[in-house]
Amino acid sequence: MENFRFYSPTEFVFGRQAEREVGKLLQKHKATRVLVHFGGGSIIQSGLLGRVESAMKDAGVYYVLFGGAVPNPRSGLVYQGIELARAEQIDFVLAVGGGSAIDSAKAIALGAAYPGDFWDLYDGKAKIVAALPVGVVLTIPAAGSEASASAVITHEKGMLKRGVLSDFNRPKFAIINPELTYTLPPYQTAAGVTDMMAHIFERYLTPSKHVELTDQLCEATLRAIVGAARIAIREPLNYEARATICWAGTIAHNGSLGVGRIEDWSTHGLEHELSALYDVTHGAGLAVMFPAFMKYTVDVDVERYRRLAVNVWGVPDDPDHPKRVALAGIAAFEAFLKDIGMPTTFEGIGAKREDIETLLDKLEINRGKTLGSFMKLTRSDCRNIYLLACE
Amino acid sequence: MENFRFYSPTEFVFGRQAEREVGKLLQKHKATRVLVHFGGGSIIQSGLLGRVESAMKDAGVYYVLFGGAVPNPRSGLVYQGIELARAEQIDFVLAVGGGSAIDSAKAIALGAAYPGDFWDLYDGKAKIVAALPVGVVLTIPAAGSEASASAVITHEKGMLKRGVLSDFNRPKFAIINPELTYTLPPYQTAAGVTDMMAHIFERYLTPSKHVELTDQLCEATLRAIVGAARIAIREPLNYEARATICWAGTIAHNGSLGVGRIEDWSTHGLEHELSALYDVTHGAGLAVMFPAFMKYTVDVDVERYRRLAVNVWGVPDDPDHPKRVALAGIAAFEAFLKDIGMPTTFEGIGAKREDIETLLDKLEINRGKTLGSFMKLTRSDCRNIYLLACE
Repeated sequence: MENFRFYSPTEFVFGRQAEREVGKLLQKHKATRVLVHFGGGSIIQSGLLGRVESAMKDAGVYYVLFGGAVPNPRSGLVYQGIELARAEQIDFVLAVGGGSAIDSAKAIALGAAYPGDFWDLYDGKAKIVAALPVGVVLTIPAAGSEASASAVITHEKGMLKRGVLSDFNRPKFAIINPELTYTLPPYQTAAGVTDMMAHIFERYLTPSKHVELTDQLCEATLRAIVGAARIAIREPLNYEARATICWAGTIAHNGSLGVGRIEDWSTHGLEHELSALYDVTHGAGLAVMFPAFMKYTVDVDVERYRRLAVNVWGVPDDPDHPKRVALAGIAAFEAFLKDIGMPTTFEGIGAKREDIETLLDKLEINRGKTLGSFMKLTRSDCRNIYLLACE
Repeated sequence: MENFRFYSPTEFVFGRQAEREVGKLLQKHKATRVLVHFGGGSIIQSGLLGRVESAMKDAGVYYVLFGGAVPNPRSGLVYQGIELARAEQIDFVLAVGGGSAIDSAKAIALGAAYPGDFWDLYDGKAKIVAALPVGVVLTIPAAGSEASASAVITHEKGMLKRGVLSDFNRPKFAIINPELTYTLPPYQTAAGVTDMMAHIFERYLTPSKHVELTDQLCEATLRAIVGAARIAIREPLNYEARATICWAGTIAHNGSLGVGRIEDWSTHGLEHELSALYDVTHGAGLAVMFPAFMKYTVDVDVERYRRLAVNVWGVPDDPDHPKRVALAGIAAFEAFLKDIGMPTTFEGIGAKREDIETLLDKLEINRGKTLGSFMKLTRSDCRNIYLLACE
């Protein structure tokens, strides 16, 4: 087990009608002038935004609405949000939505507390030393951003997708009502499930040894997600399946499953360039990239892939043929992704084999580094994985 | 899944030599005058206290030492600590030790911020609305108090053992270096393991339905503890086994395994009176009471006991005879306790059958309530469980 630091100070309020608590939570965190950031129509049409506004009015909290959050959130909107936050002397940013709204909100909160161009914080020119506090009303379980230290933004100049990690990004509170996810279309439910599974795989596939406790916790969470996902796709109004997915998405990315482990994150790196270039749903991009990554790296740690196959996918064990078991597990994962309606090839997301060199050019790897830790991927490895994803 | 609130804001610094961080962490949490509370000689002899003192001196933090923490911490010491904290204008309480030192420290922190008798907060006469901040350097993994909201104290008048739950009790930081547990005698290691398993069982044995995710997480943690405990008892200097036990002890009681579940806690209630009356190690008392509780309640939810047997104890499943499987699991738990050197009967801890009525008289149950939620225990049920524990 590696030495580690773990800190997840977010207060979670989880359950039916949990959004009613938003006024009380804003008061508790001393919010007086709130920027409410959200995406498009569904939050308005469902009445959720209205309920949140009522709760804020009842609590006597001043607020301004700032819509327009989009998937793969971009810098342009962040600049607008920062400007508005400054003009309105905002002291709290509330995101109502999924990972995109939350990540934009976090970037606005960082930028409003930084005198220069917020992108300095993203490209390493400046260190994060302050941020406005952020709260969340979650509507899409997927990104885990409601508990995570990360915030990913794509800069329009060059379509560079970059993330920052900071405790300042950890929301003060997160309100999670599984009922709010009833209306998610199956594709978005499936993409969310894929995203949270990917957050676990990035931690599970590790070079660290003696991590049995977190191995067990990762496998436990994966099993629960797989079971609940199959139900939620079939029965969108199944509260228990939705609740399981919601909470699994949170713990998949609050850091608890990665303690004491060197994490990987190369597949996220490979996918980020895909979704930046084609604007595909992040989860769908991960469904394409993860099986390819797994096939390419199976020999790095056959034993690990074998236990994943047995413990999560129920592949019958065969100690004499561990690689066969390992590959059967990867095949089971791919079959599961297809079952829940995810694409698993470049073609399925409109990505093109001839763009691979462009994708490779954008990877951070080009700063002389390799990607990931489970296997330190060179540019050539990354090319091979993209090629596997074309098949 | 039940609606829930989850909040675990403690910052954990985990790993070899982690205690070196104590000065920095105290500074970060704006501590200027620190009361250092600890137990007896082992912390002085091992040099740990000296290292902590050096770190505080280097950080320029004023501190006073206040030793004397004992197992099943009592009110007398708490009163002394509160007096000292007031006289020294303490603004931070640092516990160096295990659950006893931490619980005393929490009670001192509560009492120093309360103008009246701190016991008012324990017997329900007053509400907790403030506390001094508390930090922890952990030396005994067991109680989980380094992350929990609880603090248990025994009042010398009547030897009443009572706990309070409050977010004010959650430590600001907890330093956990598994190497500090190398010198724990096997008995204390085993008692700690029993205590953390009990914290999980109190959550696992629930009347709540549709809790698959946390069922899986509970079982995963239990499996990891059982595996690591067998190693640590045999090889006290095995870092990985010690590390697994340390972190498992923390997550067993930080609330994460109980989210969305109605918890039970009747066995802790039954044990608290035992350890208050005989001053036995809490974990040993739990080793006596938990198998008895399980045998008595097996019919409440045979299915739940069956999956525990199969998933944690590796009992071969037999769908035609679920109760047989369930009982085999309880027997396996009892055998494990004996294996690691724990007593499992009244006799083993010097408790007496003829004291059962005295124990029953002290139980909170006598305020007209029943005990627990998995099965709502009446006084007669409690008597039967104590009697089972005599066998």
